[in-house]
Amino acid sequence: MSESSRVLNPILRQRLMSAAEAAALIRPGDNVGMSGFTGSGHPKAVPSALARQIEHAHRCGERFKVGVWTGASTAPELDAALAQVDGIELRLPYQSDPVCRERINAGRMEYLDIHLSHVAQFVWSGFLGHLDVAVVEVAGILEDGRLIPAASIGNNKTWLDQADRIILEVNGALHPGLEGMHDIYYGTNLPPQRQPIPLTRPDDRIGEPYFRCDLDKVVAVVETHGPDRDTRFTPPDEASRRIAGHIIDFLQHEVKKGRLPRELLPLQSGVGNIANAVMAGLQDAPFENLTAYTEVLQDGMLALLRSGKLRSASATALSLSSDALKEFQRDLDFYRSRIVLRPQEISNHPELVRRLGVIAMNGMIEADIYGNVNSTHVLGTRIMNGIGGSGDFARNAWLSIFMTPSTAKNGAISCIVPMASHVDHTEHDVQVLVTEQGLADLRGLSPKQRSHAVIENCAHPDFKPLLRDYVRRALEGGSGRHTPHLLREAFDWHLQVQAGGRMGDPKTRTA
Amino acid sequence: MSESSRVLNPILRQRLMSAAEAAALIRPGDNVGMSGFTGSGHPKAVPSALARQIEHAHRCGERFKVGVWTGASTAPELDAALAQVDGIELRLPYQSDPVCRERINAGRMEYLDIHLSHVAQFVWSGFLGHLDVAVVEVAGILEDGRLIPAASIGNNKTWLDQADRIILEVNGALHPGLEGMHDIYYGTNLPPQRQPIPLTRPDDRIGEPYFRCDLDKVVAVVETHGPDRDTRFTPPDEASRRIAGHIIDFLQHEVKKGRLPRELLPLQSGVGNIANAVMAGLQDAPFENLTAYTEVLQDGMLALLRSGKLRSASATALSLSSDALKEFQRDLDFYRSRIVLRPQEISNHPELVRRLGVIAMNGMIEADIYGNVNSTHVLGTRIMNGIGGSGDFARNAWLSIFMTPSTAKNGAISCIVPMASHVDHTEHDVQVLVTEQGLADLRGLSPKQRSHAVIENCAHPDFKPLLRDYVRRALEGGSGRHTPHLLREAFDWHLQVQAGGRMGDPKTRTA
Repeated sequence: MSESSRVLNPILRQRLMSAAEAAALIRPGDNVGMSGFTGSGHPKAVPSALARQIEHAHRCGERFKVGVWTGASTAPELDAALAQVDGIELRLPYQSDPVCRERINAGRMEYLDIHLSHVAQFVWSGFLGHLDVAVVEVAGILEDGRLIPAASIGNNKTWLDQADRIILEVNGALHPGLEGMHDIYYGTNLPPQRQPIPLTRPDDRIGEPYFRCDLDKVVAVVETHGPDRDTRFTPPDEASRRIAGHIIDFLQHEVKKGRLPRELLPLQSGVGNIANAVMAGLQDAPFENLTAYTEVLQDGMLALLRSGKLRSASATALSLSSDALKEFQRDLDFYRSRIVLRPQEISNHPELVRRLGVIAMNGMIEADIYGNVNSTHVLGTRIMNGIGGSGDFARNAWLSIFMTPSTAKNGAISCIVPMASHVDHTEHDVQVLVTEQGLADLRGLSPKQRSHAVIENCAHPDFKPLLRDYVRRALEGGSGRHTPHLLREAFDWHLQVQAGGRMGDPKTRTA
Repeated sequence: MSESSRVLNPILRQRLMSAAEAAALIRPGDNVGMSGFTGSGHPKAVPSALARQIEHAHRCGERFKVGVWTGASTAPELDAALAQVDGIELRLPYQSDPVCRERINAGRMEYLDIHLSHVAQFVWSGFLGHLDVAVVEVAGILEDGRLIPAASIGNNKTWLDQADRIILEVNGALHPGLEGMHDIYYGTNLPPQRQPIPLTRPDDRIGEPYFRCDLDKVVAVVETHGPDRDTRFTPPDEASRRIAGHIIDFLQHEVKKGRLPRELLPLQSGVGNIANAVMAGLQDAPFENLTAYTEVLQDGMLALLRSGKLRSASATALSLSSDALKEFQRDLDFYRSRIVLRPQEISNHPELVRRLGVIAMNGMIEADIYGNVNSTHVLGTRIMNGIGGSGDFARNAWLSIFMTPSTAKNGAISCIVPMASHVDHTEHDVQVLVTEQGLADLRGLSPKQRSHAVIENCAHPDFKPLLRDYVRRALEGGSGRHTPHLLREAFDWHLQVQAGGRMGDPKTRTA
C-alpha cells in the first residue's frame, strides 16, 4: 500500500474517500479554489467526478454551477470536463482550454481575466466573494499534517488558508523527490500590516517547504495516480529562431553598452513555443551564470539548467513535456538544488519583479504601431487565453519585451496593426517589440518615432507599405499629431479578417 | 544681503552669476533635467533666459533645441517659454502646458509620456540617453554644500546625481521653514544590487532632509525671488460634490463590510478640481486618522491636515493656491510635523504603493463600458497632459478608482464610450469607475457584467439607451461575446465630435 503511505497524518487517513464521494461535498453555487498552473499540479480526479455530478443534476433539471478559481491554466480533466457540462458559472484568473474558450466566447460562461499576482490579494481582501472549497493536489501529507506541494504552487496557499472546506488529492504518481523544492512564504499580510518581502536574489529561500493546513477544515482526502499535462513543444521553427536571435543580439548590445551586467538580470519567460525557442537560443549565446525569476519553468529552461548556462530558476510551476519530465526525475537532486517553486503571489510580485530588475519576455497576439500590445483578444471581442502574468512582469520589469511572428494565418493577418483591437499592455509599459523581421527598441521614443521603429523593424514586408501609408495619412488628416490615427479606418484590417478575408487590400499589397 | 545668506557654502558663492550667464552654459542638443512638479519647485529664471538665447540663436539661423526632462508639469516661465521659441526637441515625462500641448499636437515637438515612477530608473539605466545639465531650484545651500530642497522634489536627486553640469537656482522667496520637511532616500540602486525599501508606514522617514551634491559639477548658482505657480481651484461644483459623495459612500460601505480598516488605507489623490473636491468631501465624512501616500499635496489635503482628519501626508510636491500657501506658511511647524516630501521614485514606487495598500483616486478623460480608461488622449490622437503617476498608483493599488463627470462640452461628449480611443489603464487595472451619476464597482465582474454596471451606474441618462443598444447589438452581431464590440462603429461617437458634432445621433438620443 505504497500509495497510502503518502498520507502519514492519522486524522487525515480517516478522511480518505473516493473522488465521487469527495466531489459530492461540493455544492451548487460554491466558489472552488483548485490547484493547477500551466497544466501541472491540478487535481486529477475530483473535477471530473464533479463534472459527472453536475451533468446528472442538469439531467434532473437542477441548476448546478460553481465558480472555478485556479492558479492559471489546468488540463482537460478539469477545465474541459467542467465546461463541457456547463458547470462553470465564472472562471478566473486564466485559462487556455479550447472548450472553456468556446463557452466564454459564446457568452455562456463568465470569465475574469486577472493579473496572476492580484488573485491572492483579491481573495484575502474579499473582493471576489467567499471561497467555499479548496481542491488541492499535493505530493504527500506529513505526520503532523503539513502538506508536500505538487509540481505547481499557484494560489494553493491562499486556497488552503481561505476556504471553508478542503479536499486534498494526494497524487502517488508524483516523484517523492519534489519534497524540499518549494518555498512557501507565510509573511504576507493585509495592509496596513505589510512588511518588506525579504527576497533580494532570485534563488533566496524565504519560507517553508510545506503548506500549513488546518486539519479541521479537511473534509476529504482522495488518492490519485495521474500524470500532469504533457506540455509538448514544437521544435523551434525558423521564425522562432530568428526572434530568439534578435533578442539575444539585443541583450548582447545592452551588455556592451553597460546597461546590463554580463550575467544579465533575472529572466522571465512567458509560456509557449516562442518563449521556449528563446531559451533554446540562449543555450548557444555568450552568457553565463544566468538566473531566472519567472512564472513557469518549461523544457527550454530545464535544458539551460542542465547545461549550466542557467545557475538557478525561481517559478511557481513546472510545465514540462513528458521527455523533459523524465530527465527532471532522473536527476531530481540536481534540479532541486537549482529550482525554487513559490506561490504565484511571490513569483509574480510587483515588489520583487521591480527590485530584481527582471527582463520580461512575453508573447502577444498583436501590437500596434505605437507599441500598445494585445495579449488576450482576437478581433477585439474573443478571448484567446488571458493576460496571465505578462502584466505582472512587464509593468514592473527592468526591460519589457513582447514578441510574435509578424504574421499569422499564412500571412492573412499582420500582427503589427494600425491600432490594437484590445490593449493589455499600454504604450507606457512596452519597451521592446520583436518579430522574426527584427527588433524595435522603443525606449526614449515618442509615439511618432515609435511608429517608424515598429513598422520598419517589425512589420512583415507585405504590410509595411500599408502601415507607412496609414501613418502618413493620419499625420495629414487626423485630428492630432501626437499619436496620429484615422479612427474611421483604425480597425479596417480586423473587419476584413472578420469578414473572412485578409488584412489590407490585396491589390494595394501587391502594388 | 539677505538673499546671499542662503548660499552658505563658500565655493558655491564664487559661482553666483546671473540667469543669462547661467543659461549660456546650456548648449544646443543638451538634455536638461529641470526641477519642478505640478507648478512648484521649478527654476524661475534660467529657463526663460535660455528661451531668450534660443530665440536669438534661431534668429541668427542657428539650430538650438534641448531635451527638457522634469518631475512633472511646471509653469509658463519654463514650459511655455521654451515651447514658444520652439526650443524643446523632446519633453518628458509629463506636461500640462497649453503651448507645449499645441506644439506636441501639431507635430512640432516630441513628447514621451512616461510613468513618473519610471523616470529615475530609466535615467540611471541609460535608457533615455545622457543627462547633460541639471537646473534645480533649492531653498538654500548649507555651508558644507548640501542643498535644502524647494517645494517639490520630483527627480531632483537623480538630476543632481546624473548630470555632468549643475545649475542651482536659490529662491529667496521660499519659506525657510521648508527645511526639514524633505526625506531624500539614498538607498536606491541598480539591479542586481537593490534592497527592500525600508518604508512601512506613509509617514516613515527613511532618508535625509538634504540633497547631496558634488560641488565640482556646479557650474552656476543663480539667486531668484519668485513664487511657485498659483494653483487655484474652483469651488467644488455639483458634479464634483456628487462624485465625492459616491466615493465616500463606497468607502464607508467597504469599512462596514470589513474590507477596509476604519481609518481607511493611505489615500492617493490625483491633481485637479475633482480630486480636490473629494478631499473637501472627506472633511465631513465619518473617517478619522486618515493618512495620505500621494504625489501632490493640494489645497484640499492641506485643509484635511488642518482639521485633523488627516494625520499625515507623504508626497513629492506641494501644489497650492496662493491662499493655501499663506495658511501653510503661517503655521509651517504644524505642517512640517505632518508632511513628508520625497523623491517621486519613492512617492510613486510600485513596491511601496503595493505594500501600503494605497487607495488610488485619479481623474480620466473617458472610460469605456468594459472599464478601460483613457487618461491622456482626446479623440485618440491629441495629447491632453499625460499619464503622470496615475498608472504608478492604479496598477499597484489596493483599490484603483477613476472618476470624471459623465459628460463634457455641455453634454456633447459622453465620458462613457463604447470603446476608449486610447487606453492608459486596462480593464485589468481598473476596479471602480465614478461619475456624478453613480459608482460602478467592477471587482469580480466579467466584461459583460462590467458593461452593465458601467452603463447603468455611470453613464449620463442621455447616452444610456445608445450604450445599451450598442452592447445588445454587439452581443448579437459581433464576432465574440466575451468583450462584445462592433469594430465598425466603435469610434463613431469620436468621429462625430471630430466632425464638430455631438456624440450619438441626436434623433435617436431623444427617442
